[in-house]
Amino acid sequence: MPDLEKVLPELAAEMAARSDRGEVASYIPQLRKVDPLKFGIAVVTNDGLILTAGDADEAFSIQSVSKVFTLTQALGEVGDRLWKRVGREPSGDPFNSIVQLEHEHGIPRNPFINAGAIVISDVMLAGHQPRETIGEIVRFIRFLSDDESIAIDPAVAASERATGFRNFALANYMKSFGNLVHAPDLVLGVYFHHCAIAMSCRQLALAGRFLANNGYHPATGHSVISPQRNRRILSLMLTCGHYDGSGDFAFRVGIPGKSGVGGGILGIVPGVASLAVWSPGLNENGNSKLGSIALEMLAREMNWSIFSR
Amino acid sequence: MPDLEKVLPELAAEMAARSDRGEVASYIPQLRKVDPLKFGIAVVTNDGLILTAGDADEAFSIQSVSKVFTLTQALGEVGDRLWKRVGREPSGDPFNSIVQLEHEHGIPRNPFINAGAIVISDVMLAGHQPRETIGEIVRFIRFLSDDESIAIDPAVAASERATGFRNFALANYMKSFGNLVHAPDLVLGVYFHHCAIAMSCRQLALAGRFLANNGYHPATGHSVISPQRNRRILSLMLTCGHYDGSGDFAFRVGIPGKSGVGGGILGIVPGVASLAVWSPGLNENGNSKLGSIALEMLAREMNWSIFSR
Amino acid sequence: MPDLEKVLPELAAEMAARSDRGEVASYIPQLRKVDPLKFGIAVVTNDGLILTAGDADEAFSIQSVSKVFTLTQALGEVGDRLWKRVGREPSGDPFNSIVQLEHEHGIPRNPFINAGAIVISDVMLAGHQPRETIGEIVRFIRFLSDDESIAIDPAVAASERATGFRNFALANYMKSFGNLVHAPDLVLGVYFHHCAIAMSCRQLALAGRFLANNGYHPATGHSVISPQRNRRILSLMLTCGHYDGSGDFAFRVGIPGKSGVGGGILGIVPGVASLAVWSPGLNENGNSKLGSIALEMLAREMNWSIFSR
Amino acid sequence: MPDLEKVLPELAAEMAARSDRGEVASYIPQLRKVDPLKFGIAVVTNDGLILTAGDADEAFSIQSVSKVFTLTQALGEVGDRLWKRVGREPSGDPFNSIVQLEHEHGIPRNPFINAGAIVISDVMLAGHQPRETIGEIVRFIRFLSDDESIAIDPAVAASERATGFRNFALANYMKSFGNLVHAPDLVLGVYFHHCAIAMSCRQLALAGRFLANNGYHPATGHSVISPQRNRRILSLMLTCGHYDGSGDFAFRVGIPGKSGVGGGILGIVPGVASLAVWSPGLNENGNSKLGSIALEMLAREMNWSIFSR
Repeated sequence: MPDLEKVLPELAAEMAARSDRGEVASYIPQLRKVDPLKFGIAVVTNDGLILTAGDADEAFSIQSVSKVFTLTQALGEVGDRLWKRVGREPSGDPFNSIVQLEHEHGIPRNPFINAGAIVISDVMLAGHQPRETIGEIVRFIRFLSDDESIAIDPAVAASERATGFRNFALANYMKSFGNLVHAPDLVLGVYFHHCAIAMSCRQLALAGRFLANNGYHPATGHSVISPQRNRRILSLMLTCGHYDGSGDFAFRVGIPGKSGVGGGILGIVPGVASLAVWSPGLNENGNSKLGSIALEMLAREMNWSIFSR
Repeated sequence: MPDLEKVLPELAAEMAARSDRGEVASYIPQLRKVDPLKFGIAVVTNDGLILTAGDADEAFSIQSVSKVFTLTQALGEVGDRLWKRVGREPSGDPFNSIVQLEHEHGIPRNPFINAGAIVISDVMLAGHQPRETIGEIVRFIRFLSDDESIAIDPAVAASERATGFRNFALANYMKSFGNLVHAPDLVLGVYFHHCAIAMSCRQLALAGRFLANNGYHPATGHSVISPQRNRRILSLMLTCGHYDGSGDFAFRVGIPGKSGVGGGILGIVPGVASLAVWSPGLNENGNSKLGSIALEMLAREMNWSIFSR
Repeated sequence: MPDLEKVLPELAAEMAARSDRGEVASYIPQLRKVDPLKFGIAVVTNDGLILTAGDADEAFSIQSVSKVFTLTQALGEVGDRLWKRVGREPSGDPFNSIVQLEHEHGIPRNPFINAGAIVISDVMLAGHQPRETIGEIVRFIRFLSDDESIAIDPAVAASERATGFRNFALANYMKSFGNLVHAPDLVLGVYFHHCAIAMSCRQLALAGRFLANNGYHPATGHSVISPQRNRRILSLMLTCGHYDGSGDFAFRVGIPGKSGVGGGILGIVPGVASLAVWSPGLNENGNSKLGSIALEMLAREMNWSIFSR
Repeated sequence: MPDLEKVLPELAAEMAARSDRGEVASYIPQLRKVDPLKFGIAVVTNDGLILTAGDADEAFSIQSVSKVFTLTQALGEVGDRLWKRVGREPSGDPFNSIVQLEHEHGIPRNPFINAGAIVISDVMLAGHQPRETIGEIVRFIRFLSDDESIAIDPAVAASERATGFRNFALANYMKSFGNLVHAPDLVLGVYFHHCAIAMSCRQLALAGRFLANNGYHPATGHSVISPQRNRRILSLMLTCGHYDGSGDFAFRVGIPGKSGVGGGILGIVPGVASLAVWSPGLNENGNSKLGSIALEMLAREMNWSIFSR
C-alpha cells in the first residue's frame, strides 16, 4: 500500500490548485453561502489510523449523505419489510424526479433518491413524534462518530423547509398512493432535519467506519448491523449513491460512495478504510466535482477499487 | 475458503429439485425449444482449477452475455472515444426500451442494453464486412476460452432476424439521430450473430478468466485489456449487467455479472474466479431465475461478495 | 330542428333504463355517497327556452366544470398574459398527471387539467385573500345563472382538502418551478372551494348561456367576454375539456364540453344552446358515462355537431 | 360574408411582405430545395366558386395532408374496426414520437401522427401489392380533385425512403407489438409514396370539397363518405391535425385542418368552403408558419370559426 500520509497532502494541494470547481448548490438558499474554495479530506483505516488534509475539520451540511445512516437505522427497525415500500434499483433519473413515481405507483426506486429517503423518514416516525425521531438520528450519528458535538444546523433546516417545494411534491405524491403513513408535513420535518446535520470530513469518515468493517463499530466492537446487511448497503451505495451519476462514479472510482448536495461524499473501501471528502462545487449530476475527482485519484493511487484485488 | 468441490454438486442438486423455474424466453422462437429443466454451473479459479456440475458441458445461446466480449473488443479498437456514443449509467428501463433513446437523443444509456450493444456492433463494423466482424468476434471468444469448437447457431441467428422487430426499431431510431454509421440491416447482422453464439458453462467460465484476473489471460499470460479498463468493465457489469434487475442482483449476489435471455449468466469474482451458470427459465426482469439464485447461494457460501473482504 | 320538448324526456327515460352506468368517483370520500341512479339534463336555448328532464333541479358537485368559469374570470383579469403560465394543448395524459409538468418545467398543458386550473386559482388570488377570491367566483356564477342560491358545499371542500394529496403534489411541484406566486396551501384553498360548488343541471345550463351566445349574457345583454375570447374558450373545451377522453368526446358528440368527476358535463352548441347533463357514474377517462352518451344522442338527434351545418 | 375576391389577394400580398417565414423542413433532403418565398392559397366554396391567390397553381409535396385521404379510404374499407388499431386522442408529443407507442403497447394515438398513418397504410395493403394500393390512393385523390394530372414525385418518395429511419423505427416497433400485418418495408413503401404526392393549392382545395359538404362530392353528387363519418374526420382534424400544435391551431384559427411538412395545410369550413394554403417555412411544431397565420386571418375576416355562428 502506497504511503497515505504522503498521498493525502499532495492530493489536497492538487485540488487547491484547480480552478474548475463546479457550481455550489443554489436551490437551498443557506447552502449558497458556502465558500467554493473549501476542500477537505479524511481517511480512517480499519486499523485505526486517522489521516486528514485541507479543511477536514470544518463542518458542512451533509445533506443526502445522511441517507446512509437513516437507511441503516430503518433496516434495524423494520428489517426487510422496508423493501415493500422502497425499490433497490438505480433510477435513471435526476435525484428529485417525480416521473418515476408516477410510473411505479408511488414506490421510489431506491432509498437514496429523495423520494426513497422520505419514505424512510416515514418508517422511522412510527410511534414517535418528529422531534424524537430526529433526536434518535442525531444520537446514532454521534455514537458512530464518537463525537457528541455533532448537531443539526437549524438555519439550513429552516431554509429547506421554506424552499423545499419539490420535496413537498414528492411526499404528497407518495401519500396519494398510500406510500406514506404520516402527514407529509411531519415526515418532511424529519427529512429536512437529518439533511441539515453538519459534520466535518473527520466526523463523517469516523461515522462510516462500521461500513468498512463488515458492520462492526471498531471503537466499541459492537455490531451496528449484520455483515450481510452491511454488504447490501454498500451495494446500494455503489449502484445508487450518486443519483444519475452512479454508474459513472462506479466506473471511475470503483468504490461504494454516497454524495450530498452540500459537496460531501462518504466513500467506503470494504475491509480497509472509510473516507470522507468535501468540496462544495457540484458537477452536472449534483455530486461534488472535486470530491469525485479526488476520490478517483486516491482510489487509483491506493489500488482501492472493489473491482480488482 | 469452503470446499468448492463439495459446494458445487450440492448446489446443482438443490437447483434440480426446485420447481419454480421461471419462464423460458419466448420472443425468439428458437429459444422456446430449450428444456426448462436444464441447469449447469462451472467455476474456473484464478489458480487454474476448473469445477463443474449439472449440464455444464451443454451449449446454450449466450445471447446478451456476448456483449461483455464485444465491449472488450470495441474498447480495444476505439478506446474511450466509445463513450461519446454510449453512456455508462444504469437504465431504469426494460432491456429493449426505446423511451430512453428519445429522451437522450439516440445515445443508449449503457453498452449492455440492446441499443448500446447495437452501437458497439456498428463500431466494430468500421472498415469491415459484417461477415468479417462476426468472424473476429467468434475468434476472440475461441481464443479466450481456448476452444476452437465454439460457433454460432445459425438457426438462432435466423430466428432473431426474422422476429427481431424491436431491435430493428432501436437500430433505425438511433440511425435517425446519427448514432449509427452503417446501415441498420448490416449492423443488426453483426448483432444477431454474436447473440447467437452457443457456449457451454465451461466454455463461458473459461472465456471470462481475464476479467477475474485484472485483464490478463492466464493460459497465455497475454494482457487482453489493461487493469484499469478491466475494472471498468466489471463496474459496468455490476451496475448494468442485469437490465432493470441490476440493482437487485448487486444487492443479493454482490459480484459483477452479465446475463442473457438464453438463461446464462457470467459472474466474476475479481482476483478469485470466473463463474458461469445456466438455467433457461427467466425471472420478471429477463434474467435466469435459478441462475441468479444459484450465484447468490454460491457467493454467500464462499464469501465472494466484492462488498466485504 | 326536431322537437326538443319531445326528445328530452325520451332521452331521460332511455338513460333511466340503462344498467351499465360506470363507477361513481371514489377518491373524494364525499362524492362516493351520491346515488348512482341519478340522471338530469337541462337545455337553455339562445332564444330563452328552458327545458329539463330527470333530476335536473338537484344540485351536484360541479368539480372541474367550474374551471370554465374561473378561466373566463382569469382571462378577464390578466388577459393573454395568462398563456405564459398555462399551455393550450391537449395533454395526452390523465387529469392528474405530474409527468407532463416535469417535461415542460412546471407549465401545465392546458387550463382544464388539474395543474392548469391550480395556476388559474393562483392568478385569481393576486391582491386578494383566498376568502375574497372564492367569494368572487361564487358571485360570478350566481350572476351567470341569475340564481343567488348557488353555494359551495363545505363538506365536499373539506373532504377534498383532507384527501387531495395529488393536488398538493401538483401545486408544490409547480411552485418549485416558480409557476405559483402564492403559497400552495392558499392556492389550493381557492381550488378546492370552486370545485366544491354545488349546482343543478338547470343552474349550470343557465350559467353557460354566454358561451353559446358569443360571450353575451342574454338576460342582461352585457358582454361577459369578447366574441374572440369566447370562441377560444370553446376551442379549449373541445380539445381539452374531457381530459384524455377529449378526442373521443369530440369524435362522438362534436360539441365543446367540460366534464367534472361529480358526473356533470356542460355542453355548448354555439349560437344555439347551452346544455347541462348529470349522471354520477364515470367512464375510464373520468367523464360521466351516461352523460357523454346522452349528449352524443342529443347532438345527433338535433344535428348539433359543430362539424356540419 | 365579406368579399372573398377582395380578401384573398390582400392576404397573399400581406404574406409576401413578411420576412419571418419559419424554417423549410430539412430532414427530407428533397424538400430542402423548395423556395421559402412561395405562398399560395385557394378557396373552393360549397356553391362552386374557386378563388386563388399567389402560387396557387404550383405543385408542392402534400406530405401528411395525404393522411386525410388515406384515413377516408381506410374507413371506407374496414369501417370502425380501424379504431381497434389506432386511437382518436391528441398525442401531446411531437409528430414522430415513439415514447407514446411504448406506453400504449404499439397503438398509435391517432391516425394523423406518423405511426397512425403507417397503420392505415398497413390496413390498405390487405390483399394488395404496394403498387396497387399506391395506385388506388392516387386515383382517389384524382377523382376528388377531378384532375388526372396529379401524381407522385418519385424523387421525394426515394428521398424519404433513403432517410426515413425514424419511420422505419416506428413501423418496426409497431410490428413488434403485432400492430402491423405486413412487412414494415412494404407498408412504408405505401406510406412514403402517398406522402410524396404533389398537388397545388387549387387541386388540394378541390380534393377537400367533400369534407366541407357533409361527405358529398359536389361535382358528381356522389357520397364519398357518410355525413356522420365526415363529421368525425373533421373532429380528428381539429383535435389532431397539427401534431402538438393542434390545440393552438384550434384556438387561433378555429376550423378543422391538416398540415404537412411540405408547408401545405388543408382547412375545412363545414357547410361553406374547402381551403388550401402553402408556404414552405415551418413553425416550431412542424406546421406551415405563414400558412397558419394566413388561415387565422382569413377565418377571422370571414367569421368562419366553427366556435361561433
